[in-house]
Amino acid sequence: MSRQAGNLAFVLWSASILAALTHGQEAKPRARELGIPFDGRPGNWNAITDVLGVEVGHATVVSGDGKLQVGKGPIRTGVTAILPRGRDSTEPAFAGMFSLNGAGEMTGAHWIEESGYMEGPLMITNTHSVGVVRDAIIAYQVKEGTVGPSGMRWSLPVVAETYDGWLNDTNGFHVKPDHVFSAWSGARSGRVAEGNVGGGTGMICYEFKGGIGTSSRQFSERGRTYTVGVLVQANHGLRSQLLIAGVPVGREIRDHLVHKQETGSIIIVVATDAPLLPHQLKRLARRASIGLARTGSVSSNGSGDIFIAFSTSKVDRPARGENPKVEMLSNDDMSPLFDATVLATEEAIVNALIAAETMSGIDGHTVVALPHDRLKQVLKKYNRLVER
Amino acid sequence: MSRQAGNLAFVLWSASILAALTHGQEAKPRARELGIPFDGRPGNWNAITDVLGVEVGHATVVSGDGKLQVGKGPIRTGVTAILPRGRDSTEPAFAGMFSLNGAGEMTGAHWIEESGYMEGPLMITNTHSVGVVRDAIIAYQVKEGTVGPSGMRWSLPVVAETYDGWLNDTNGFHVKPDHVFSAWSGARSGRVAEGNVGGGTGMICYEFKGGIGTSSRQFSERGRTYTVGVLVQANHGLRSQLLIAGVPVGREIRDHLVHKQETGSIIIVVATDAPLLPHQLKRLARRASIGLARTGSVSSNGSGDIFIAFSTSKVDRPARGENPKVEMLSNDDMSPLFDATVLATEEAIVNALIAAETMSGIDGHTVVALPHDRLKQVLKKYNRLVER
Amino acid sequence: MSRQAGNLAFVLWSASILAALTHGQEAKPRARELGIPFDGRPGNWNAITDVLGVEVGHATVVSGDGKLQVGKGPIRTGVTAILPRGRDSTEPAFAGMFSLNGAGEMTGAHWIEESGYMEGPLMITNTHSVGVVRDAIIAYQVKEGTVGPSGMRWSLPVVAETYDGWLNDTNGFHVKPDHVFSAWSGARSGRVAEGNVGGGTGMICYEFKGGIGTSSRQFSERGRTYTVGVLVQANHGLRSQLLIAGVPVGREIRDHLVHKQETGSIIIVVATDAPLLPHQLKRLARRASIGLARTGSVSSNGSGDIFIAFSTSKVDRPARGENPKVEMLSNDDMSPLFDATVLATEEAIVNALIAAETMSGIDGHTVVALPHDRLKQVLKKYNRLVER
Amino acid sequence: MSRQAGNLAFVLWSASILAALTHGQEAKPRARELGIPFDGRPGNWNAITDVLGVEVGHATVVSGDGKLQVGKGPIRTGVTAILPRGRDSTEPAFAGMFSLNGAGEMTGAHWIEESGYMEGPLMITNTHSVGVVRDAIIAYQVKEGTVGPSGMRWSLPVVAETYDGWLNDTNGFHVKPDHVFSAWSGARSGRVAEGNVGGGTGMICYEFKGGIGTSSRQFSERGRTYTVGVLVQANHGLRSQLLIAGVPVGREIRDHLVHKQETGSIIIVVATDAPLLPHQLKRLARRASIGLARTGSVSSNGSGDIFIAFSTSKVDRPARGENPKVEMLSNDDMSPLFDATVLATEEAIVNALIAAETMSGIDGHTVVALPHDRLKQVLKKYNRLVER
Repeated sequence: MSRQAGNLAFVLWSASILAALTHGQEAKPRARELGIPFDGRPGNWNAITDVLGVEVGHATVVSGDGKLQVGKGPIRTGVTAILPRGRDSTEPAFAGMFSLNGAGEMTGAHWIEESGYMEGPLMITNTHSVGVVRDAIIAYQVKEGTVGPSGMRWSLPVVAETYDGWLNDTNGFHVKPDHVFSAWSGARSGRVAEGNVGGGTGMICYEFKGGIGTSSRQFSERGRTYTVGVLVQANHGLRSQLLIAGVPVGREIRDHLVHKQETGSIIIVVATDAPLLPHQLKRLARRASIGLARTGSVSSNGSGDIFIAFSTSKVDRPARGENPKVEMLSNDDMSPLFDATVLATEEAIVNALIAAETMSGIDGHTVVALPHDRLKQVLKKYNRLVER
Repeated sequence: MSRQAGNLAFVLWSASILAALTHGQEAKPRARELGIPFDGRPGNWNAITDVLGVEVGHATVVSGDGKLQVGKGPIRTGVTAILPRGRDSTEPAFAGMFSLNGAGEMTGAHWIEESGYMEGPLMITNTHSVGVVRDAIIAYQVKEGTVGPSGMRWSLPVVAETYDGWLNDTNGFHVKPDHVFSAWSGARSGRVAEGNVGGGTGMICYEFKGGIGTSSRQFSERGRTYTVGVLVQANHGLRSQLLIAGVPVGREIRDHLVHKQETGSIIIVVATDAPLLPHQLKRLARRASIGLARTGSVSSNGSGDIFIAFSTSKVDRPARGENPKVEMLSNDDMSPLFDATVLATEEAIVNALIAAETMSGIDGHTVVALPHDRLKQVLKKYNRLVER
Repeated sequence: MSRQAGNLAFVLWSASILAALTHGQEAKPRARELGIPFDGRPGNWNAITDVLGVEVGHATVVSGDGKLQVGKGPIRTGVTAILPRGRDSTEPAFAGMFSLNGAGEMTGAHWIEESGYMEGPLMITNTHSVGVVRDAIIAYQVKEGTVGPSGMRWSLPVVAETYDGWLNDTNGFHVKPDHVFSAWSGARSGRVAEGNVGGGTGMICYEFKGGIGTSSRQFSERGRTYTVGVLVQANHGLRSQLLIAGVPVGREIRDHLVHKQETGSIIIVVATDAPLLPHQLKRLARRASIGLARTGSVSSNGSGDIFIAFSTSKVDRPARGENPKVEMLSNDDMSPLFDATVLATEEAIVNALIAAETMSGIDGHTVVALPHDRLKQVLKKYNRLVER
Repeated sequence: MSRQAGNLAFVLWSASILAALTHGQEAKPRARELGIPFDGRPGNWNAITDVLGVEVGHATVVSGDGKLQVGKGPIRTGVTAILPRGRDSTEPAFAGMFSLNGAGEMTGAHWIEESGYMEGPLMITNTHSVGVVRDAIIAYQVKEGTVGPSGMRWSLPVVAETYDGWLNDTNGFHVKPDHVFSAWSGARSGRVAEGNVGGGTGMICYEFKGGIGTSSRQFSERGRTYTVGVLVQANHGLRSQLLIAGVPVGREIRDHLVHKQETGSIIIVVATDAPLLPHQLKRLARRASIGLARTGSVSSNGSGDIFIAFSTSKVDRPARGENPKVEMLSNDDMSPLFDATVLATEEAIVNALIAAETMSGIDGHTVVALPHDRLKQVLKKYNRLVER
């Protein structure tokens, strides 16, 4: 097979294609369907897309098997795009960040901290492909005539990453601009594919196969309903650390270990329709730490645990010459949002573990999926399985 | 009884007196002695004082009963002093801070962030007494001729707080300079009194009686043994949130509730003899969040959850004209310190709950202690009790 | 004279009394009246009080002469109170901070960073009196039934400081709660006393007598007029560094030097009626650095250069059950506010130097005022004097 | 000419080639040679390369003239590489950052903040080429077998930018991986080319032609000599703001204006051989603000003013099993470093203005160089010209 043909053979799934593929088959159960107890009430999709306007697209790049040949594969990687206001909006969204352990990259951070705004999409990929994704976002915006989204002539895209070099030929730089366009243009509301998809394709979580996971929470306050949605790209943790519903699952399922020391990372994206100002969104981003902690992580030295929260609340633009008015949730009303963020983060991580499937990559490295049956046995042992 | 006599009637315990008082009686069990499972190996005292040089002193101010008369009592408050290098040292210690939720005060923060040094003692008291404690520290330093510790002519003391106004006449301002001197001069190594003592006297934790708690961890790396010690002043959380060893204890023990919404706080102090630079100590301070999260907190809006970590590692001062040399732990060796910080924080909080005793304060408000027997039953229900 | 009588002899001026005292006499010229060139258009008072609602009060404590007797004097100190919305408001104001060099204290910082709000007054005093001022603010709020301003049961006051120990018996702790009440209750709009008043009484700036200075700028944008007001407590700098209007004044006037190395500090308070969110106010606070830089400071190691900006813009509270709406200036419209902040900061510092008068304090230490005539000669030499 | 040939026609200068080119011709004067007064004593090259070990390389990409055809040119851009320890070292350097106004990108920031280390080179380019430069650095490290420099299997390169879209076809993405390799492999100690070179090729400063500038300061303390070197990529400011030696030069030379509002940025890199810890380097990075302020900038809304400081001080690695010892300058000795940073930053910016030459770019846009003769006249008018 020629190099060209090999390139063509890259399997490229966008979320919509994936959805089609999985339409006919019985859906895999998600974490709560297995009987894992979670608190709080999720939205319709139990996904970040429950926040109205948020769209998610994946480009998954999988090709080849066997021995690593740098530049040729095997390839187990991709890109995930999160669009705060959908594919067609160029309006910014208030955002705030928090770095629990900054052994990672999230570009665009300086401008978010300065301006309070995230402009354009948020993308997540592998560590060594952040640059190509960043510039491809600009190229797409140039093509669409929207550089930069807030009317400036430049763009400072937001791209985050985790490292997939144990399964993927990560130094072969296999993410290409077309994958970025594909993830972006394929973004949709509704069900979000989880596990070995998009940026999460080659990821490892508590030494089980990890990747993309998502969850959401809804609650009512003073007569209004608010939604918090979380999406994670989970690539962190040692087996011995894993807690699910407070149960030391990682100590009970000790086979097929991968690491000697943690070298992974987790990117956590929190979306909400609650009208939060940038400094309030930083508060939400910090709560992602607590959700992560509930699954057992201590955020090790080499872990790039960087979190971002954004609000889709609209800005009310009055007559010309007037300043915009922005709605603002009182600080006193924020604690339920903290609860929602913590709970949705915890469940999103477990959803990634439940959805991901055993994968082999470079040099025959194999990472097994968390076995559902054994997990249920362990939960039962600790009286934490929700029987149906 | 005259006002003077009333002042004299303030019961003032320093840690050393308390130690004497408790010498003859059977010691209360600590958390792990009850069969609560904790990971890692604690030091000799399972206390922050396991870090060589660290001394702790409490001044506990308890007086009166019945209806609140602002300025007269009832009084349930105090001060806790933590001396990084003992009572007599004026040498600074590298330090770093983290505010998980800044609804609280920790003075001296700007200089710690700027200089990397904590100079002098760290004290914890009630919210409305931070000022008197701060200035009393300076007065004590002036008396001792050590203003400021690093040779400057001024001092920027480090004083933190949590709010005790549900049990204490906190607007009566009952902490006085003499309590500060007493806590300072009474500071000792060895066993640390926990529960209703010092700054923790009137505190409430997950709607049980809270207060001071401490724990430590030791581990060896490359032939050296490092210690991490944690002391908390725990005044945070709703009952429904409480997790112990991952078990939803707060949902199982639902009587004697106190709050409608969380209004408390927790100050966490992390000490280590590992040679960490200031930016590395900030990493440790952030890990206190994870230990806190493991007990169920989401760090609510009104919670002043401010953490500080310091190292007692000595600076090697060579010949005049040379710069000091400081030992530095490699970042790659830090993950075990993160584990230790998380685990000691978790246990210190539970120790505070186990040590604290039921207390009545102003207007007959009563906060009950976490009942040990019922806790053991709950742990057993979830197969998490360590039988002896 | 008895100790009691000595206490009574403390000369206590509130701003209103000072205003009366200076009413009959010819007012000292301010910096721009001397012919120093400044850019931009000041408000009516060329003071922080040009921002509608802002009130300023000083309590100035001056007593005794001659040799230092710690606890007795001589005394050269005080407190300055800045009330964002006037004496009677308990409504919070959005605020943001920046520490250019944190060798100083500004309490309340954690809550401002967390909540975005400054609640209650901002006070500035000497380094060793921060505690007493902090707690006295709470005592005053307790008395007025407004603890804390935002409806919480506790208060986290904002108190900043610079060090006056070269002129003042600063270890005698001469600032008392009554001075705090006096500064607060005496706060007024209108002209602001400058120089040796309030917290600025014993301060030294570029080795000339320093203290309180203020200035303002107004500009119109999209048909609306915005005001930025600045107040400084200036106690920083070496003579050799001093620049005025870009001219190296400090090198030209080299007599009556005081320091061997800089040990001072500057607190800068920026007020505006522009509707800025907390993260935008941090941007303003950072610009105070640039105004300071224009007077020659490099913000030395021992300098506590901590800045705070707040907005008096009102929050629009709609019907019950709705969230408040806040007006927000577009980031794109902020640059003129940056100009205004820089220019008003620069002029406020020079105003402090121009207003302050030669003072002698402990042990006969004397700090001379910047001589107006020589300053004009120097400006003329560099073709920068505005002739009238 | 074919597209291929056009690519080859890109004019690519590395610093070494440039040095050769300029060898035979009379060197342009630098700022201080024109008689502009600067304080302090520069090093041998008055450049960042005076800090032993630091090497700088430029790749300058200039091609075409006339009307903009996106993707074809005209091209006025490039890359500048700064290697803290020379081309061959993979040892990290302590570093610290500060964002005065974060309307820009500097990748790698999270890891520098977390670890205290800058690993690998620092590169500066145009805004839309940050991604390609970032990934090309990794590709180079992969090729050299040094991913990542500290022994990790991944790399988080540090790439900063300013916007050159007024002169350059910036949306044509003309910076290619080969330019990155060229700047890196061509890096040298010694004289540093300034003005229209490397990342600075298409930059505009105070509406004059800007670009790369550099300067240094040396001073002795306690018998040791320390060097501070600064390199800027200057693309900021409005003409009316420009101050040189405190003189309002921008108001005196008012022709050939470019902007209606500031849209530029400045990246400032501070290098020193003083043994500073990461938190101390953040202090240095903040002082770059003061040097920038002295040239008149207020750091406008759209300005990406992001600064980084690193130390080349070596880590002393003792016997196996021991922790490294690092030398540390006392905080008390830092003020002269602050002076040096401020002064070298100021001079580096002016050097960029003095070195840059008039350039025409896309659509015939022309930016003129600061005219040396008129500058001297203005300085003379304000009695600030140093006559020789």
